[in-house]
Amino acid sequence: MRASVLYPGGEMAVEERPVPDPGPGDVLIRVSAVGVCGSDAHYVRHGRIGNHVVDAPLILGHEAAGTIVAVGPGIAQSRIGRRVSIEPQTPDPTSSESRRGLYNLCPHMRFFATPPIDGALCEYVTIGASFAHDVPDTVSDDAAALCEPLSVGIAAIRKAAVGMGDSVLIAGAGPIGLMCAQVARAAGVTRIVISEPDPARRAAAGQFGATEIIEPGAPVSSVDAFVDASGVEAAVVAGISALRPAGRAVLVGMGADAMTLPVTVIQNREIVLTGVFRYANTWPTAISLITSGRVDLDAMVTGRFGLDDARAALDADRTPGSIKAVIYPGLSRSVSSSADRPASDTEKGRDT
Amino acid sequence: MRASVLYPGGEMAVEERPVPDPGPGDVLIRVSAVGVCGSDAHYVRHGRIGNHVVDAPLILGHEAAGTIVAVGPGIAQSRIGRRVSIEPQTPDPTSSESRRGLYNLCPHMRFFATPPIDGALCEYVTIGASFAHDVPDTVSDDAAALCEPLSVGIAAIRKAAVGMGDSVLIAGAGPIGLMCAQVARAAGVTRIVISEPDPARRAAAGQFGATEIIEPGAPVSSVDAFVDASGVEAAVVAGISALRPAGRAVLVGMGADAMTLPVTVIQNREIVLTGVFRYANTWPTAISLITSGRVDLDAMVTGRFGLDDARAALDADRTPGSIKAVIYPGLSRSVSSSADRPASDTEKGRDT
Amino acid sequence: MRASVLYPGGEMAVEERPVPDPGPGDVLIRVSAVGVCGSDAHYVRHGRIGNHVVDAPLILGHEAAGTIVAVGPGIAQSRIGRRVSIEPQTPDPTSSESRRGLYNLCPHMRFFATPPIDGALCEYVTIGASFAHDVPDTVSDDAAALCEPLSVGIAAIRKAAVGMGDSVLIAGAGPIGLMCAQVARAAGVTRIVISEPDPARRAAAGQFGATEIIEPGAPVSSVDAFVDASGVEAAVVAGISALRPAGRAVLVGMGADAMTLPVTVIQNREIVLTGVFRYANTWPTAISLITSGRVDLDAMVTGRFGLDDARAALDADRTPGSIKAVIYPGLSRSVSSSADRPASDTEKGRDT
Amino acid sequence: MRASVLYPGGEMAVEERPVPDPGPGDVLIRVSAVGVCGSDAHYVRHGRIGNHVVDAPLILGHEAAGTIVAVGPGIAQSRIGRRVSIEPQTPDPTSSESRRGLYNLCPHMRFFATPPIDGALCEYVTIGASFAHDVPDTVSDDAAALCEPLSVGIAAIRKAAVGMGDSVLIAGAGPIGLMCAQVARAAGVTRIVISEPDPARRAAAGQFGATEIIEPGAPVSSVDAFVDASGVEAAVVAGISALRPAGRAVLVGMGADAMTLPVTVIQNREIVLTGVFRYANTWPTAISLITSGRVDLDAMVTGRFGLDDARAALDADRTPGSIKAVIYPGLSRSVSSSADRPASDTEKGRDT
Repeated sequence: MRASVLYPGGEMAVEERPVPDPGPGDVLIRVSAVGVCGSDAHYVRHGRIGNHVVDAPLILGHEAAGTIVAVGPGIAQSRIGRRVSIEPQTPDPTSSESRRGLYNLCPHMRFFATPPIDGALCEYVTIGASFAHDVPDTVSDDAAALCEPLSVGIAAIRKAAVGMGDSVLIAGAGPIGLMCAQVARAAGVTRIVISEPDPARRAAAGQFGATEIIEPGAPVSSVDAFVDASGVEAAVVAGISALRPAGRAVLVGMGADAMTLPVTVIQNREIVLTGVFRYANTWPTAISLITSGRVDLDAMVTGRFGLDDARAALDADRTPGSIKAVIYPGLSRSVSSSADRPASDTEKGRDT
Repeated sequence: MRASVLYPGGEMAVEERPVPDPGPGDVLIRVSAVGVCGSDAHYVRHGRIGNHVVDAPLILGHEAAGTIVAVGPGIAQSRIGRRVSIEPQTPDPTSSESRRGLYNLCPHMRFFATPPIDGALCEYVTIGASFAHDVPDTVSDDAAALCEPLSVGIAAIRKAAVGMGDSVLIAGAGPIGLMCAQVARAAGVTRIVISEPDPARRAAAGQFGATEIIEPGAPVSSVDAFVDASGVEAAVVAGISALRPAGRAVLVGMGADAMTLPVTVIQNREIVLTGVFRYANTWPTAISLITSGRVDLDAMVTGRFGLDDARAALDADRTPGSIKAVIYPGLSRSVSSSADRPASDTEKGRDT
Repeated sequence: MRASVLYPGGEMAVEERPVPDPGPGDVLIRVSAVGVCGSDAHYVRHGRIGNHVVDAPLILGHEAAGTIVAVGPGIAQSRIGRRVSIEPQTPDPTSSESRRGLYNLCPHMRFFATPPIDGALCEYVTIGASFAHDVPDTVSDDAAALCEPLSVGIAAIRKAAVGMGDSVLIAGAGPIGLMCAQVARAAGVTRIVISEPDPARRAAAGQFGATEIIEPGAPVSSVDAFVDASGVEAAVVAGISALRPAGRAVLVGMGADAMTLPVTVIQNREIVLTGVFRYANTWPTAISLITSGRVDLDAMVTGRFGLDDARAALDADRTPGSIKAVIYPGLSRSVSSSADRPASDTEKGRDT
Repeated sequence: MRASVLYPGGEMAVEERPVPDPGPGDVLIRVSAVGVCGSDAHYVRHGRIGNHVVDAPLILGHEAAGTIVAVGPGIAQSRIGRRVSIEPQTPDPTSSESRRGLYNLCPHMRFFATPPIDGALCEYVTIGASFAHDVPDTVSDDAAALCEPLSVGIAAIRKAAVGMGDSVLIAGAGPIGLMCAQVARAAGVTRIVISEPDPARRAAAGQFGATEIIEPGAPVSSVDAFVDASGVEAAVVAGISALRPAGRAVLVGMGADAMTLPVTVIQNREIVLTGVFRYANTWPTAISLITSGRVDLDAMVTGRFGLDDARAALDADRTPGSIKAVIYPGLSRSVSSSADRPASDTEKGRDT
């Protein structure tokens, strides 16, 4: 199969790799679409994220969808042909974290596109069958792939514990900030303030749920929760300071390892501060939100690329107005709209 | 002032009463609109609810809105002229329940239209200033009055603990069932099954959030929560049986004092069963949901009555298709639409 | 190996069975001690529990401890020789319940001594390695076996959500009621009322945590939580009625499939009623409570039996004053005290 | 009455003040005992805490007990003669925080010994009747006064959400750290690690619940929760780093307004960080823990002072081995043990 491979040093190349075999409990998926995440670009540009270093060839991509084409031992043949959204993680189900329902925190986690584990920028991948979530045909390949960043938004808003009639401040209107805004809106949050310095991103915020759009540093009246999707210390400090007593702050954006935080504010208002590390048990919610029209993922796709153009896709975030690039591993050349894509598995029917 | 009074035996008459004086911490409100609740009708027809017996003349009505026209000691004059929705309860703030935030469960509660406490079917009432919640002018008098049954729906859905992407079964499409459906939709619930035997009510359910409408007894696939707004034992049993493991059942509808429930199902699936007794801390949420357009209360008003027609309003629930009757204490005769009402305080401006 | 087998019809016999092979992820355990549970006796006497029918030979026993003597593929050899307490369940880790941390509610559960799955009344059993919990040598074989009923008590008290300074009413002073009392005491509950009709059981209650011991029907002043360990409808009704507003009722005891419950009380006080179905994530807590001396399981053992006397052990609950019988599968004849047992694996050292 | 007054500049003097009158809903209390808190000493030494500045004469003392000697309008005469522990706060019961049960966070709070509100270092004080908590005669005056710092420990351990069988790391073995340790022990926590640099304080830690006592910086294996009672940034960083995934950190100790915290650890492990601002709804729990013997407050009193020696009491924390000083406002001279005190109201009977 064809795979887009990142080499230590930052070079990328498409090369042939063997199609993987699904092991016990696994499924083999032909990948239809892969969203590009800021972490993918970070690996290309910096060669590492924290302790995870690209010291051997690595396949990027962890926002992925596709069609099951084979199953491993123990998995029903009836799953073959299903269009699925991939939850790109393999925790150890026997760890104490997994057993408590916190499988995203499992210390033995194997996660797509995190060295040394390969990702989905290739034609075929395997994953545990229960991590390949069926999607109905009303869900596009793009949207199925973007269940992954949507899941980050779901995880963040769950931890923010906001719902109907509540208010939230979100710092940052990048893809994750916008996902959080969409999820907040879907959860019934009626006041969604987005703080963002970039004018192009500010313009997009209103489309995805913001009810107030401000520049960083502008005053914000008391909110129930704050979600940081910027990774910027000043934004975090401002967000904590905007919280009502007993409000909640959720750190999603990755920034410096340490930040100087206003602990007296945290104490005097009994603020609850926490962070999000990926997600657990979010896919069913994500798919319900998409199929019910409560969130719109297709509108977030601003670039569509073939596998040979993966490097361009990874740099698409440098284009003003870009929100989310999607790569189609089955396609060589990029396309200007989804209409230009070859028929998807849905359109071709299930007899593929 | 004019007041509609219920006598022991079930007779009603409009009579003159003195305008009450606002005590320390209270406000005096000229009542603009009062929704009719099934409990009002029950007092008229049966003379009692549980231990609360109509053994002396009683003013009914606890779904009320109006305009503050005077304030008691300790309350700022600036509140005069405010349009408000009335939270019709006066708990003892020093009880242990109130101190824990469960003021609806305060054993020393004084509640509108619950013998021997009078309600709002009259021209003026007093209430604690913090229980008179300001509403913006975009909220109609009708909607301001219906914050009360909306609050029941909010309390129920909070206890059901459902939100974005979840599923709920609601038994009963009367006013409270429809409120629960609207709130569930506002909270992001994507699957809302309503069970209701009456065809006219079934027809209304889709307008207020139902995604599936069934007859009682029809099979329902596993739901995250069940809300009973019927008070019917068979509906409660069916609802509990439809729950997924660890699902939640919330009893809102009043029915028999005791019901035979499937405890083995509750045990084997670790179902959580609870009930709702009015509400606490719901008004700010209610007003946010109305002003943001997440719920539509005006569409639920199916009858509009003057004070002299209060008895007819109380019997409006016997008309097929009726959802909610509203009485205007400042009006003698009934009107066929809200357009026929005299100008509200909003329309007349604040110089009243 | 030798196994005690229950036949349809209620006959029991010790017979030879092959030693099981540990599969991938499993361990093979030589069973040292097995507690007798009321459900074991129920299978013998009635041939079924709910839908689980003894229609083929069945090995009883699910409260078990032992020593790991072999490991299956994927499990470290270093675990051989470990003394363990057995969590006798095998959920499907990919079910949605397991993934949310509710693995006890997994619909694909395989549970010891529940037809058609065999239990531990035999010399050797296999279990998933992470369900064999290491115990230190300060924990006796008896106590290691009784981690299972202790886990029921932990699950119940967790759901009752009581802790330091709180109050609880427990109906029933059988083994589970006493476990709940011990756990409540360990959790800091300072008022523990036990209701029990049997004088011999009432006498034991004080030893295991009760601060008040009453006869069923005696008045109880308001408590924070109620735990039913009786399965008797009248006790459940009395317990619910004794709760403070927002109190919690937890049904542990198995009784009739349906009970007539005071739903008006549940509604008016917003009581939370739920049940316990076994347990999840309790073993680490159980072992900490035992090793720290916060609970005393050895004191609950009132009879010690060899495998040939299993039937007598199962009927020990009919002896007044009996709390818990323990069977030693490696022993033929019964013993009058633990001192009469052959040296345990601990005493013999780890070179077994 | 006699009162110990702190002047701007740090001078203290005993002077005559009028006995206060109990207002509506209040009680008048003759103060029997007042514990000395680090915040009292801080006001003396530094003249301010945050925005609260001693710019007028101030009576210190907020850990207080006494006997009700008169009641204001609306309070039953039967409360006269009751020995009480004082919860030294007066929130506005109509604030949204109070209504949600978070009255400690009420923005209109009036709190003892916080400028410009006077405290309890005097012969008589008034407080809302529901904030004067009856204590049985088995509770000493000292223990009744120390319900206040015990409440801080209860609030902290509640937020740490640890209970039976859990583990906690506490930084600091001053009075608050020791209170947290006692409460953790009472809540069933079986592993209580205390980190403290001072050898004298380390020696005391074992007496009040510590199961491991370490020097700051020593490695700690994974704990469920961390409570900071030191206010030291390095201790907070070490504590957060010692937490298991999804562990909780609670900041109790007051230190710098801002601290540099390891946000990547907070994110990657989804740590929950929060703070404690006094307490709400803790007194009933505190009194239950004392009367049941689950905590021992009398053993924490290391100095007993008359009102004329208040300044010496405030400096007692500079004596090695000192834990808690208590001042008796009805006594002029200090005493070496509680046996030397005049008979308490209990000992004299209720006819005072």
